[in-house]
Amino acid sequence: MAHISLNHPKLTLEGAEAVLAAAKVQAVRMSKPMNIAVVDDGGFLLAFARMDGAKPASIEIAINKAHAAAIRRQNTGPARSGEEVSVLLSLGLAIGSRAHQTPIRGGLMLEVNGECVGGIGVSAGTEDEDTEVARAGVAAFVKG
Amino acid sequence: MAHISLNHPKLTLEGAEAVLAAAKVQAVRMSKPMNIAVVDDGGFLLAFARMDGAKPASIEIAINKAHAAAIRRQNTGPARSGEEVSVLLSLGLAIGSRAHQTPIRGGLMLEVNGECVGGIGVSAGTEDEDTEVARAGVAAFVKG
Amino acid sequence: MAHISLNHPKLTLEGAEAVLAAAKVQAVRMSKPMNIAVVDDGGFLLAFARMDGAKPASIEIAINKAHAAAIRRQNTGPARSGEEVSVLLSLGLAIGSRAHQTPIRGGLMLEVNGECVGGIGVSAGTEDEDTEVARAGVAAFVKG
Amino acid sequence: MAHISLNHPKLTLEGAEAVLAAAKVQAVRMSKPMNIAVVDDGGFLLAFARMDGAKPASIEIAINKAHAAAIRRQNTGPARSGEEVSVLLSLGLAIGSRAHQTPIRGGLMLEVNGECVGGIGVSAGTEDEDTEVARAGVAAFVKG
Repeated sequence: MAHISLNHPKLTLEGAEAVLAAAKVQAVRMSKPMNIAVVDDGGFLLAFARMDGAKPASIEIAINKAHAAAIRRQNTGPARSGEEVSVLLSLGLAIGSRAHQTPIRGGLMLEVNGECVGGIGVSAGTEDEDTEVARAGVAAFVKG
Repeated sequence: MAHISLNHPKLTLEGAEAVLAAAKVQAVRMSKPMNIAVVDDGGFLLAFARMDGAKPASIEIAINKAHAAAIRRQNTGPARSGEEVSVLLSLGLAIGSRAHQTPIRGGLMLEVNGECVGGIGVSAGTEDEDTEVARAGVAAFVKG
Repeated sequence: MAHISLNHPKLTLEGAEAVLAAAKVQAVRMSKPMNIAVVDDGGFLLAFARMDGAKPASIEIAINKAHAAAIRRQNTGPARSGEEVSVLLSLGLAIGSRAHQTPIRGGLMLEVNGECVGGIGVSAGTEDEDTEVARAGVAAFVKG
Repeated sequence: MAHISLNHPKLTLEGAEAVLAAAKVQAVRMSKPMNIAVVDDGGFLLAFARMDGAKPASIEIAINKAHAAAIRRQNTGPARSGEEVSVLLSLGLAIGSRAHQTPIRGGLMLEVNGECVGGIGVSAGTEDEDTEVARAGVAAFVKG
């Protein structure tokens, strides 16, 4: 054991912008203007775009999803108690973390060899649409 | 009656660190890296550790659970209306207290002769795992 | 250029606890009970101790200083305009960042080869005392 | 008079990204990695980039400056009482607006024929450096 561990990867702005650009292409393809946020492993914003026509109310939700996925090391979505979705646990975590966790889908982790390096969050559509756009972003992420 | 009451016990940092250390040992035994917080009777943080690999999103939840157990003088968990868990009451209390109460299990009181002197909160696993680690902390608490 | 950069160091809990322990020793030596917080490079709490007698009001200040030093990549203290301390800039940054920056001394960066891996924040004494205790923590940090 | 007024210009994402790109070029030229935010006339984020090496603590400041310039219809900077900079007024406005105003320079309005359509905010350097990078962004803004 030691005071530091070594050889951790970090997401670059170039990486974040590639992820963002791919998500945007997918949103255009679906004709769904979206808010798209990409953050690093500390949940800090790296790149963001609000497409023309995407509602401003979703800006914070998109950033929130990216942030939550990154610092929870897990795609966003409802919390479960066993197999069942638990409303109590899902909202309890959102409230208790002062909104640093969210039960809403559309936030995906970016990882390299099992280590979280950031997240992408998408908002303005349905949860399925948001997730589909986020997935296109993740797919463009080159871990090499 | 008098203006003051006397002879109250207070949790020391040494006590808090012993509780924290025992909880950590249990978490290691379970191979579950955890966020572990110990607070005094006012809900104020005394000792904290985030084990390597425990997700940052659970820091606030662990502190939150310890705080809530201490100032609610009760282990954390869902609020009930009669025998039934009430989602409305549980989340209403969490929201209304601005997250000073939580329906999520894993926060336990530390008490001496029925008097609350603090709390321990654990987060990063399931509620059962969190509670098991918190219990190991409480078990190490010497009230003498 | 690439989507990720490699070979970054991370502070471990063992490192954080060594820093915390050394700071505590110094506070004992000075007979000044302190709140001491150690965070990682994202400003997330890793280890914390409030020594017996340290005022609870300084818990948040200690965590705040550690957080601010880490995410600002700079020891905490007043902002300057040229050589002069600027009250306007110092407080403007604290307000504008919603308290993620602080002009109060006593928060020091932990770094490895010029890369920030975290911070230590100390509070309960004067700014000089807080800084002296924080420095003892930094001195115990082994970067190897 | 009528219930609506017509023919207002709105900043597009394409416009915001052109402004952002030009600011980035200037920051690279100055070897100063920056946080750069572009918002619309309601102060809502349109585009953002944190350049590699720019400190996370300045993310909120950059967004804050862009937001404040846009909704205050004025470049950011200290408030004056007569000719004199007033610390009290500057910070009073920042606090009273809950940080929707800022006395820190580096936030510039984007306008078309005297009508505000948004703002750019830059942070991580000195106020002069931030302003210089923001100016390069404004210069790239094509109002036609």
